[in-house]
Formats: sequence, structure tokens, C-alpha cells
Amino acid sequence: MTLPSDILDKNRKTLVELLLKEIPPELNLASIEFEGPEIVLYVNNRQAIVKFLDTIKAIAKKIRKRVVVRASPDARLPPEEAKKKILELVPKDANVDPNSIVFDETLGEVWIKAEKPGAIVGKGNIIRHFVLAETGWRPVPQRASPLESKMLNTIMSNLLKQSKYRLEFLRRVGERIHRDVIFKNNYVRVTALGGFMEVGRSAILVETKESRVLLDLGINVGAIHDPLKAYPEIDLDAIRVDELDAVIVTHSHLDHVGVVPLLYKYGYRGPTYMTKPTRELSAIMIQDLIQVARREGRDIPFGEKDLSTMILHTIPVEYDEVTDVAPDIKLTMYNAGHILGSAIVHLHIGMGLHNIVYTGDFKYSSTRLLDKAVSEFPRVETLIIESTYGATKQQSRQAAEQQLVDIVKRTIERRGVVLIPVFAVGRGQEIMVVLNEAIEKKLIPPVNIYIEGLINEVTAIHTEYPEYMSKSLRDAIYRGENPFTSEHFKIIEGDVGRPDIVEDRPSIIMATSGMLTGGPAVDYLRLIASDERSSLIFVGYQAEGTLGRKIKDGMREITNVVEGKVEVLKINLEVHSIDGFSGHSDQTELVRYVLNIKPKPRNIILNHGEPNAIYTFARLISRAVRDPSSGYQTVPNIFTPSILDSVNLTASR
Amino acid sequence: MTLPSDILDKNRKTLVELLLKEIPPELNLASIEFEGPEIVLYVNNRQAIVKFLDTIKAIAKKIRKRVVVRASPDARLPPEEAKKKILELVPKDANVDPNSIVFDETLGEVWIKAEKPGAIVGKGNIIRHFVLAETGWRPVPQRASPLESKMLNTIMSNLLKQSKYRLEFLRRVGERIHRDVIFKNNYVRVTALGGFMEVGRSAILVETKESRVLLDLGINVGAIHDPLKAYPEIDLDAIRVDELDAVIVTHSHLDHVGVVPLLYKYGYRGPTYMTKPTRELSAIMIQDLIQVARREGRDIPFGEKDLSTMILHTIPVEYDEVTDVAPDIKLTMYNAGHILGSAIVHLHIGMGLHNIVYTGDFKYSSTRLLDKAVSEFPRVETLIIESTYGATKQQSRQAAEQQLVDIVKRTIERRGVVLIPVFAVGRGQEIMVVLNEAIEKKLIPPVNIYIEGLINEVTAIHTEYPEYMSKSLRDAIYRGENPFTSEHFKIIEGDVGRPDIVEDRPSIIMATSGMLTGGPAVDYLRLIASDERSSLIFVGYQAEGTLGRKIKDGMREITNVVEGKVEVLKINLEVHSIDGFSGHSDQTELVRYVLNIKPKPRNIILNHGEPNAIYTFARLISRAVRDPSSGYQTVPNIFTPSILDSVNLTASR
Repeated sequence: MTLPSDILDKNRKTLVELLLKEIPPELNLASIEFEGPEIVLYVNNRQAIVKFLDTIKAIAKKIRKRVVVRASPDARLPPEEAKKKILELVPKDANVDPNSIVFDETLGEVWIKAEKPGAIVGKGNIIRHFVLAETGWRPVPQRASPLESKMLNTIMSNLLKQSKYRLEFLRRVGERIHRDVIFKNNYVRVTALGGFMEVGRSAILVETKESRVLLDLGINVGAIHDPLKAYPEIDLDAIRVDELDAVIVTHSHLDHVGVVPLLYKYGYRGPTYMTKPTRELSAIMIQDLIQVARREGRDIPFGEKDLSTMILHTIPVEYDEVTDVAPDIKLTMYNAGHILGSAIVHLHIGMGLHNIVYTGDFKYSSTRLLDKAVSEFPRVETLIIESTYGATKQQSRQAAEQQLVDIVKRTIERRGVVLIPVFAVGRGQEIMVVLNEAIEKKLIPPVNIYIEGLINEVTAIHTEYPEYMSKSLRDAIYRGENPFTSEHFKIIEGDVGRPDIVEDRPSIIMATSGMLTGGPAVDYLRLIASDERSSLIFVGYQAEGTLGRKIKDGMREITNVVEGKVEVLKINLEVHSIDGFSGHSDQTELVRYVLNIKPKPRNIILNHGEPNAIYTFARLISRAVRDPSSGYQTVPNIFTPSILDSVNLTASR
Repeated sequence: MTLPSDILDKNRKTLVELLLKEIPPELNLASIEFEGPEIVLYVNNRQAIVKFLDTIKAIAKKIRKRVVVRASPDARLPPEEAKKKILELVPKDANVDPNSIVFDETLGEVWIKAEKPGAIVGKGNIIRHFVLAETGWRPVPQRASPLESKMLNTIMSNLLKQSKYRLEFLRRVGERIHRDVIFKNNYVRVTALGGFMEVGRSAILVETKESRVLLDLGINVGAIHDPLKAYPEIDLDAIRVDELDAVIVTHSHLDHVGVVPLLYKYGYRGPTYMTKPTRELSAIMIQDLIQVARREGRDIPFGEKDLSTMILHTIPVEYDEVTDVAPDIKLTMYNAGHILGSAIVHLHIGMGLHNIVYTGDFKYSSTRLLDKAVSEFPRVETLIIESTYGATKQQSRQAAEQQLVDIVKRTIERRGVVLIPVFAVGRGQEIMVVLNEAIEKKLIPPVNIYIEGLINEVTAIHTEYPEYMSKSLRDAIYRGENPFTSEHFKIIEGDVGRPDIVEDRPSIIMATSGMLTGGPAVDYLRLIASDERSSLIFVGYQAEGTLGRKIKDGMREITNVVEGKVEVLKINLEVHSIDGFSGHSDQTELVRYVLNIKPKPRNIILNHGEPNAIYTFARLISRAVRDPSSGYQTVPNIFTPSILDSVNLTASR
């Protein structure tokens, strides 16, 4: 292979020349392509791939790029033949479903569903490359989940359908990522577009002289009726869609991802980076947002088509994996411990000029579901940290669990119904694990746990991605002890007789929405509100103005209009609120994070908090970092920006 | 006249409809044009203009716009006839030079040079309108100055030559200024582009959702060899030249105006607003910058052509006059007391959403030349204040003058030469006035004062614009007592015998450059350095690294290479430095300004100072505004931004 004449960028030319020099001629290279953040070697001699695996790894390390090997289209077996070969080659204990093997002819990939997908890849990717060498098809393993996610199936089949566009897209992005740097990099600047001095519509613009990257782009669902407060400041000149290099999403809550489809509606056709669980969960959440808006006759400026466009342009990344997203920006995502797939974003900018850690929402202690957030990084000059609970201390997780078990036990003993309103993503699954274990350990009797709402689809996504959960939970699932498939859970779908369900006593009902703003939870409440033996347990934040908040604050009568008649409901059931299940770090954990983070930043920027939380947290850390034992050699700059403020991170102050 | 069909903007349509309804039919309106910030009524019946003057004034007040009346081209007398009429009409004591009457056929203006130009306008513009009514030509008076400025002549003749383009330009700007507002204005944001935490390359971007305005665009002459430090951050996305509404220049020092021509080189064709003296002085300063760079073989990214383009697109504004510069921004300039024509900029944004006062460089006490800076405004929410001397107190002006007179007197008594290196703009003229008065009052004997360098051209501009000087100086000039034309001043031009001049003893020599970095001052120093009877007096700032600074700091030997030979010069003359002549407010004046400003701002942003000056000043005012007697009801936010930081002025904090 010779150097293609159409590469004009010096940067890519240099990389290709280097690769041409280093790649063993025996591989018979057909072409080198830049596909998204990856450099793809298309080889004619696929049989030699395994032999030179270590060589290729060494080259990748040397050029600090992600290098992927594929067989050139001519060197691939016909699909039927390849399928046979795959079923021979893949270890039996992977338990491959032969009907699930799908070929993506554009990308040269073969998707293989298996109960143990890890076995298809093998240690150090060895089996994957073995299959590639023998068939010419690159295996992409998928988990055959015990719970099926409709959304995941939709996403995968759409991606397959649009595979050709996807390849074009990746090559376009690849060219852009590896374009030449024009300016000597002399600044890194962040602009607060949303979620500063407030919670909701998180959005941060990171700019260098060369590149522009958005961190999160969320919607403030609580302010949905006021577009000026619901959406981040995205009409700012600096984020024209054709000049944006990347959108990076930390996690799937709507206040972090909800406005990304709007960017695509506005014409953005660049990549959005997130973990796979975040992609799936975001699709679920955004679809629900659109559908609820439509149902309620509310205007929302984008639709399912824009959501599909977003998914089509999403490039999944894994934790701890370095990804080039712009010529001068490398992205690494780390576990944030907040919800499934949630990430702390690390940006390495300008060959070491500056490193940013943006926590997104994070939990700095372990939960049932997730390990605690990562706090060690290769380098950090600026920390952007969420401050939701900057002014609030929380109950310990153990105390919270104990309280939950006690209330449930008492309610069961008096043959009542326990109603737990839950958010679809995050705390619902956490409570499921706690309740299942309590039954297993006989702390509470084995009653039925009914689960209704979006939470079931979300739980299915959890079972698809055990590798994103805590080590202990992951290991349990690998051992076949999947708490989410426990016999105690009764999943309610479609047209159900809710009045019948509340007659199954004693029992537990988990249902959305978490703040009683609608959904089955409200219906269940109406059915059991007057029953003194039953209990209502809030396990999450109840926002101002919601029914949940009103009841939590002591309201004991609900007025409803049902079929034209006014119905007044007395609330006689027990009302409890447990605050220790939050997915956010509380004040103590936040301060501990600032003290524990390694290495120590010189700028700390507070976001994602009400003004009182931000200012309280700022005061606390301002004092803490001045303590000689804090580990801070230099007192860092602490910033509390408002929306539309910008901070030049590389300025000396 | 009917409503022109080509006006599509609602905003302009509404204004035109209103005007059509209010303007007396007797005027026989030919057309209404938006020319720059002015609305121009072209009337066919010029004879009726004087009759309806008050009506038109009332209309202008009602719509809060600047309304100008011109005669339609058909209603103008032929120039020769008009000239005769003008000479009849204009009061004799104006002393019009008949050869200086020039007709601008495109704009329908007639330029008339007179010794007393005010007499051509008359009280309340009455004579101007009388001439207009009688001839159809709008008189533009010019001062027949006793000192001629070549630059002013060049500027005026160029403007006349390009009158046709100028009219097109003004109409284009007029349309843009009065365009419809798309967004509900919900923020005002400033971005530090240069001159923050430093002195030099001043530049501030003011953004609303609708408009973008630049305040100053200067060059850091001291860092001219490092483009990253010499120019403001103008490649920022937010200031694309085609989306900029206006450039507003506070004064003619290069660190405030030096980079404006570059914007025009980059394709900017919008307006730059400044006072007329600032236009003339800027042209002189920038031309000198370009010529010196060329002479020294240094690269400078723009040339004379770009300077001409800037002048062509400059719209002059007068102090205290409200000017629309964008659909949501009104500009008013106020006297800043720093140098001739220097202005404090007031922006009234979004129909009262926010008001910014940007001091530029200012002097909050009176000098010989200028009245002290204005500190009362209609409204102020944000004050952007220069901080050059935030950490420094200065000698009083009286003490400085006394010291100067004492040194000069002693030197004259021992028959020495007094050498005063001066900057071209500002302090030079101040020293001239002081020395002239000292001779008039017989504090020093009447010796020759030789003046050489750019300062002479600058002095000529001063004599053109007495209305921009202090009341007492202005009155003196109107009385015919112009200190700049005093017989004691000997202006040196062209090829002069400097060795002969230093033989005229005793005498005083004022010459550029002010920091002995080149120019005639250095030559004079070589000639008198070894003479113990002579004196060298510094009256301005001596920057690090300059010859002036070295001598000030005690160096008493200069090594020069003259015609290939090394020459070592002993400095035996007396060396003095007087710091009280600065055009900047000192620390005490800065703090007093913050306390005296009316009304009180809620944001104070510090710029134009080294970090130590900024932080010291911030501490001082932070304490001062907390004093109950300070007049501040609420403690204002104090910001000390670095370059590329942005502050959202309308955020609540």
C-alpha cells in the first residue's frame, strides 16, 4: 500500500507514513482509514493478524492512538460460511444463540449474542482476533440478557440499517479529529451554559483556540414551561453546530442529556460520546420526555427523529479508555458511581497544556449498584465539581436501608401495602437490590414486589451491562445470581388491574413517577391512600410544587378531578421519607472528594447546585484546602460562575 | 411621500409611519433615510425648515432618535450661488475663509472653515438651519486653526473624495442599527479580550442575545515582538467581523485604538465610533506606528490602507450625545479628562435592562488641559474601571508644577539646557501650557522653548478642538489667548541643526519619544549629556527596559554605536523625574471615583492594571463600599477578570 494522495493534512499524513513504515508487510495492508477516534487497518492477509497482534499493540502505544484491525472486504468469508466457522471457534460456555448472529457488511463486523459475551472476546482480545483471522469478520459481542430491552433492540437494528451512513460519518469524524492544528494552543476556556447556580439544564462549553467541545446538554424539566429557563444558552455564537467538535454526555438523566437531540435538529452532525448504558438509558428517557409532552399537549422543540439522529451519531466509549475527540483534546471517562453508565469526564488538552476533570453527578461512596466514584487521575489542573448537596448532610446508607426494612416489615406485619414511588433510572434498581436481599436474608417475609413503569425497561438495560455495576454485584450476576431476575419481582406491563394488585396483601409496589407528578404511582396512591395499614415511602428528592413534596410536607388531603367529578381523598396511610438513597455525594463526601482527589487541581469550579449549596460548599473547601494537612501545596482558585460566565483556565491569577 | 415598500423591518416601518404622521405636510418630504445612527428627513420645501424646527425637535425627542433635516438634491442652489449666499448669511465675526468653502454633493453638506466656527451654527443650530433653508446645503463648520494639521487635511479630503461610498455605508449601518430585535433581551455579557490583569491591548466585547459591540481594540506596543501578547484575543469566535455591530474607541492611545485597522483588514465594514479629536489623533498615532515599524524592519499586520478604511468607517460622536449603535444599545460618551477627546463610554442596553459605564483611561481631577472626568450618569449597573494606579499614590498637580518650575529656573540661571522627553499625545501639551504660564507670570525668564517631533502635529489638533478642552483653556482660546501659539514656542520641522539649537542657552527643549526609545529626544540627550549645567526631566512613565528607565534608575553612562564606532557618553547633567503629570487617576482618585459615581453600580469590574494594582484596588474598594457612609446600599460584586474570562452582568449572584 502506498500513501494515499488525498490526505492533505500533515497530521494524518505523518501518522499514515509512520504506520506504513511499522506495519509488517506480511499483513498485506489494503488501506488505512480514520474512523471516528480509531485508526483502522484493513488487511488482505487476515491469517497473519494473530501473529502480529503484539506488534500492532506496540504501534498503537507508540503513536498514542486507538488502532483497530479489520479484514479488507475481499478477505472476508461469505456470511453463511463465516457463521459456521464462528460457531466452531467460539468457546462453548459462551452459550451463543445461533439465531442472533448478524453481519454488518459495511463495517465488516459480526454481532454475536451470547450469555457470556466476554468469552467471545477472550483475554486480551485473543479470541476476537482469532475469529477475525479465520473469517475476516470482527466479532462484536452482545449480552443475551434475561430481561429484554425493547429500546436496545430498536437501537441495534437501526444502527445496522444505517451502517453505510455510519461508516461515512465515522470517516468524516476521523478526518476532523486528526486535522492539523492551526494555532499554537495558548488557552483553555470554559463557559457556563446551564446548570450553574442552579440544578437542571447542565451544559458546559470547553474551548481552545482550535476546538470546541460541549460537556452535557440537559433540560430543566421543572422549568419546561419557560424556554428561557428550560434550555441551556445554546444560541451563543461560540457553539455553532458546524464548529462543534464533540458533545460529551456524563449520564442519562434528562438534566444532562435532554437537549442533545435539539442540536441534531439544528443541523449538528458531529459525534456525541457516552458510555453504552448511557446511550440506551438516554434513549429511554428522552423518548419518554417526548411522549409525555405530546400526551400533555406541551410543545417540545424536537422529536423522535432527532433522537434517532442523535443515537446514530453517538460514539460509545468505555471507562478508562483514552479517546481522541479533537486534534488537541483526549477524553477519558471514569466511573462516577451515580447511576448505571455515569461518568466523570477527564479531558487532556493540548499535549499536556491543561487537564480538566468534570465530575458530572457523582457519588463518592459505594452503593449496592455501583462502586464509588474514581478520584485518581493522570493529571488534573481544573476540577469542575457538582454541588447539589453542598449545604446538606445525609443519613448513612446503612441507616437508610435499616429504616426502609423496618417500615416495610411493620407494614407487612399489619398486612398493608408499601408504595414506593421511584425514578425510572437509578434509585429504583438500588431499592430492588436492597429489598431482594432483605427477603433472601429473611429480614422481611417473601412478599410480592410489583414493579410498574419505565423502571422495567431500565432494569433490563442494567442486566445488559453488568460490567458497569459494582464489583460485587457484577460477580454475583456472573455467578448466575442476578438480583433483578428474582422471583419476588412481578413486572406489570400493559393494561393491568391496579385495583386487583392492591388487594394482594401484604405486598410492595414500586412505580413511577418518583415525585408523584403522574404515572402509575399516583394511581396506586389513590387506591390505598385511605388505608391506615399501608405505607408511602419517598426514597428520592421531592421538588417544590410536586404532589410528592406536598404530601411529604404534611398535606393530608388530595383533591382530584376524576371523570368530571371532584374527589377528595383523605391520606391515612403512613408517610415516610428516607434521604439516604441519593445518588449524589452529600456535603461530607463532596468535601472529602476535593481533599482526596489526586493530583490536586489549581482551579476548582462549582456547578450543579442552588446558590446556597454553591456558596456553602465554596466556603467549606476554601477553608479546607488552606489546612496544611489538606495536601494542597498551593491554594487553588475557587470559582462560582453564573450562567454565561466564562473562565480562562490557563490564565495566571 | 408614501411608505417605501422596500422597508421590511417592523422596527423601521414603525418609525417611518410615525414620522409620516407627525411631519408637517408643508415641508414636502422627499424621503426618509436611515444614515448611520441618524434619521435624515430630505425635504423639498427647504424654505419651511426654520418654521418647523421646534416641531422636528419635538418629534426627535418623542421617538428618542437623532433626526437630521437636509434639503432634497433638487432643492439645493447651484454651489457657486450657494457660496455667495452663505457669505452673505453667515455672521461677519465668524471670519469665514471664502476659499475654504467646499461642497459635498452626495451628502448635501457644505464645509465652511472659519476662525469662529460656532458662529456658523448659531445658538440652538439656528444659523445652520437658516443657511440650509436659504441654500439647501447643510453647513458643517470647521475651525480655521492657527496651527495646521496635515493629518486633518488629509482625512477631510479623503472623506470628500469617498463621499458616495460614505453615504452607502451610512445607509447600510442605519439599516443594521434599526433592524428588528429577534430575541427577548435576557442577558448582557462582557468578555475580557485584552488589557485585563495587564496594561496594553485593551479590548472588551459586550454581547447581548442580539448584538455585539467592541470597546477599544488596542495594541501592546511593549510586547510588539510577541503577537500572542501584543494583540487582543480577536480570533475568538464571538467577534466575527460580519456580526459585529460597532467598535467604540475611548481615546487615541495605541493601547486602545492600535488594532482597529486590523479588523478592517480582516473585512470588517461596520462603524467605529469615537470623538473627532480621537479620530484625528488616532490616525496620527497609528500612522506613526506603521511608519516606525517599517523603518525598523518589523512586521505589523496592517498598513496605511487599512488605517484609511478605518477612518472612512468612523462615525464621530460628541460628548453627552445619545447615539443608537445597535437595535438594543445606545451609546453616550462623556469627558474622561485623560487626553484630548478621551471618553468614558456609557451603554444603555435593552431598553433599560442594563447600563454599563466603561471609564477607559480617565483622570478624576482637573488638569491645565482638561476638566475632570464625569462621574454622574443617568443609570449605571456595571462600572468597568481602569486600575493603572490602583496601588500607587501620586504627587499633587501643584507640587509637580512647582517642582518643574524650580528645576527649569535653576537650570536657566546656570545657562543650561532643559531637555524634556515627551509623549506625542497628552502630557506634552500640558507641559507647554505650564511653561508658557510660568513665563507669562515671570516665574521663569522668557527663554526659547524648542519643540520637535510628532507633538507638533498633535498640538495642531488641540487647537482645532478647543471645545474638548477645559472650560478655562477653551475660554482663553475663544478670547484669543491661545497658549499653543505663544511666541515662546519654536517649532522644529524638517532637517534642523540640533547642535545649533543646544547652543542657544539657556533654553528648553521638548522632544519625543517620551521614554528615550528613539526620536529627536535621544539625539538631543547625546548633545548635552556631558554638560553639568543642563537638566533632563522625565514627566511621564518610563517602562522597564527603556533607556529612559535606565537613566531614571541611576545609569550614568550610555554606550552608543555611531557610524561604526563605539561611543561612551558620560551623563553629567542633572536627572529629575516628576510623577504628578500623569493623565491617569491615582489610587486616591480611583477610590474616590468609585465612591462618588452616581448612581451606584452593582457590578464593578477592574481592568487596565498590573495584577498588584488590580488586587490592591479591589481590596481597597471592597472595604470602602462596605462603609455605611459610602452611599452603597448593597455591596456590589467586584470582579477581577483575566483575559478570556466572561462575566454575565445580568446574572443574580
